[in-house]
Amino acid sequence: MLVKKDQYNVAVAGATGAVGRKMLEILADRDFPVANLKVLASARSAGQTLTFKGNPVTVEELRENSFDGVDIALFSAGANVSRQYAPFAVKSGCIVIDNSSAFRMEPNTPLIVPEVNPDAIDSDPGIIANPNCSTIQMVVALKPIHDKFKIKRVVVSTYQSVSGSGQKAIDELQEQTKNLLDGETAKPDVYPHQIAFNCLPHIDIFMGNGYTKEEMKMVDETRKILGDSSILVSPTAVRVPVFYCHSESVNVETEKPISAKEVKELLAGSDGIRVVDNPENSEYPLACDGADQDEVFVGRIRDDISCENAINFWVVSDNLRKGAALNAVQIAEYLVQRA
Amino acid sequence: MLVKKDQYNVAVAGATGAVGRKMLEILADRDFPVANLKVLASARSAGQTLTFKGNPVTVEELRENSFDGVDIALFSAGANVSRQYAPFAVKSGCIVIDNSSAFRMEPNTPLIVPEVNPDAIDSDPGIIANPNCSTIQMVVALKPIHDKFKIKRVVVSTYQSVSGSGQKAIDELQEQTKNLLDGETAKPDVYPHQIAFNCLPHIDIFMGNGYTKEEMKMVDETRKILGDSSILVSPTAVRVPVFYCHSESVNVETEKPISAKEVKELLAGSDGIRVVDNPENSEYPLACDGADQDEVFVGRIRDDISCENAINFWVVSDNLRKGAALNAVQIAEYLVQRA
Repeated sequence: MLVKKDQYNVAVAGATGAVGRKMLEILADRDFPVANLKVLASARSAGQTLTFKGNPVTVEELRENSFDGVDIALFSAGANVSRQYAPFAVKSGCIVIDNSSAFRMEPNTPLIVPEVNPDAIDSDPGIIANPNCSTIQMVVALKPIHDKFKIKRVVVSTYQSVSGSGQKAIDELQEQTKNLLDGETAKPDVYPHQIAFNCLPHIDIFMGNGYTKEEMKMVDETRKILGDSSILVSPTAVRVPVFYCHSESVNVETEKPISAKEVKELLAGSDGIRVVDNPENSEYPLACDGADQDEVFVGRIRDDISCENAINFWVVSDNLRKGAALNAVQIAEYLVQRA
Repeated sequence: MLVKKDQYNVAVAGATGAVGRKMLEILADRDFPVANLKVLASARSAGQTLTFKGNPVTVEELRENSFDGVDIALFSAGANVSRQYAPFAVKSGCIVIDNSSAFRMEPNTPLIVPEVNPDAIDSDPGIIANPNCSTIQMVVALKPIHDKFKIKRVVVSTYQSVSGSGQKAIDELQEQTKNLLDGETAKPDVYPHQIAFNCLPHIDIFMGNGYTKEEMKMVDETRKILGDSSILVSPTAVRVPVFYCHSESVNVETEKPISAKEVKELLAGSDGIRVVDNPENSEYPLACDGADQDEVFVGRIRDDISCENAINFWVVSDNLRKGAALNAVQIAEYLVQRA
C-alpha cells in the first residue's frame, strides 16, 4: 500500500528505452510529485545521462537492491527483466507498475487501464500490470460500450506502428525506407521481413492455435480488464510502416440494440476519449495526428450493415504514451490520489 | 459476340495510365493474339509513344469513331470516359471490358472474375465490367469457400496500396516520404491527408450511411460476383503507405461447419490462388512479395476463436495486375477461348 506523502521516491527501470524515456518525459510534464528519481537500466547503459525536468540524471545499473527506499517503480525493460527484478522491488516495499507482459495474466495481478478498471487495484497490490498497447486503446473505447450495450464479440484488425518494437525498429523503418527510395535493397533485422512500404501480419511469436502472442494478448487482456470472460475477440495484428501510433479497425457486436448515433454521444462524453468523426470534412482519427497526444481517438463510427446489433469504428492512439508510458504514470497518479 | 479468328484487333483506352500500361505489358507477356493494337488516351496524351512487344506504338486520341474494326476494347480511363465512349465502342460491334465502376452494378452488365463467374457472360455481352481491385482478390478467395460452406457474413479490413490511386499517388507517397525523412513537411495533394508513414481510413467518397464508396463496392460487387444477395459484408477500407499490392484481413462466417484445415486444402487446389501459410517459418502473404505476380496469395488461415463456423485469413494480390489489368486480359482470354 502506498503511504500518503507529499512526494514519492520513484524508480524507472528500463529508462533508456523508447518507453522508459517517455515515462520520464510524462512524469515531468504532468508534474508527478517526485521526491527522488532513480533511472535504472542494464549494466551496458549505466553511466549514461538522461534528462528529467531539465536536469541531468545518471543511469544506474538495475540490481536487486536498487529499490531500497523507492515508493513506486515503473518497469519497462521487457518481461525477463521484470520477472527477475520486480519481486525484489516488491520485497523492498515498493509498488511496481510493470509495462511488460510478465505478470499481466497472473490471477492476482491487477491489469489496469485507469479509465476502465482502477477499482481492480486492491489495497496491497505489489505488482500492477500495464496492458499491451494494442489492448489499451481498444478497451478505452470498448468500456463505455460494454457498460451500456454488453459486448458479445469483437473482430479487430490492427495497423501497428514500429515504435511498439522499440528504437531499433524505428531506425530500421527509417533505414529501409531511405535505401528503397535510393533504389537499394531493404535488409530486415528487427522484423523477419521488409517493413518499409509493406505490411506484416505477424507481431510477436506464433502460438499453437495459429494466432500470434500479440493477438492472444488482445483476447485475454480485454476479457481481464473488462472483467467479463464471456467477451469473444477475433484479432488480426498487423505491423505497418508507420513510426508512431497504432490504428485499429474494430467491429463490435452487442447483446442490446446499439446504434452509431448512441455510441458517438456515449464516447464523446467518456474519459480519455476524443471523438473525431466528421467524414464529410475528411475528419477521422489519424496516426500522424495522434503522436504525443494523450487521448484515444475514435471515429468512423457507423452501424454495421451486416449485423443487427453491431457497429464499426476506427481507433488511434499513441502506443508509447497511452499504450504504455502514460497509462503507467496514470496508474501511479491513481495510487497517489487514493493514498 | 466475339467471332472466332486467329488474331483480334485490340484497343486499350486509357493506355498511358498505371493500369493501361500494365494492360499492354500483360497482353504482350501472355501472348494475347493481337492482330492490330490501338492505344488510346485523352487529346493531351495523343502523340506519346508507348511500347508493345518491343515496338513503339503511338497514342491516338480517344474518339467516338476510335473503335471501327476493333474486336475487343479494354477501358481503364475512369468512369466518366467509360460512360462517354464505351457505348460507341459497343455500337461499333466491339466487346468492351471496362475497368471503371461505370457499369459494374448495371443489372445487365456482367461483373466478372474469370476464376469465379465466367458463366455470367452471356452470348452477346456488349460491356463486361471488371470489378474493383479490393473486391477481386477477396472474391477469388471467397468463391471456393462459398461453394463448399455457404458464406453468411464477411468482416474485412483492407490495407490498400497507393498505386490504386494511379501514378500521381505513387509519386506523392515517394515525395512525402523523402520530405519527412529530410525533416520537411508532407504536402497532401492526391489524398486529403499525409499518406507517408500514416494510414487513411478513407478511400473514395463517403456515402450517406457512413461507409465510403470503396467499402460499398466490396459489399455490392461481392454479392453480384458470387451471385448471392444474402451474403453480408462489413468492410473498412484503409489506404496504407505501400506502393504495390493490397492486403486484406478477412473474417468469414459460414452456414456449414468450417475449419482452417479444410480451407487450406480447398484454397491450395483452387484456380488463381497460392496458399502461403507456414507461420512457424514466418511465411505468409506479403505485399512486397506479391508485386508483379499473377496469383492471389492467401495465408494466416485459422479458425476464428470467437465464432463457431468462421475463419480468419490474410489475402494479398497485385492490385494493378489481378486487381485490374490482368483480370481484364483474363476476361478477354476467356472470350477468345469461348469464341
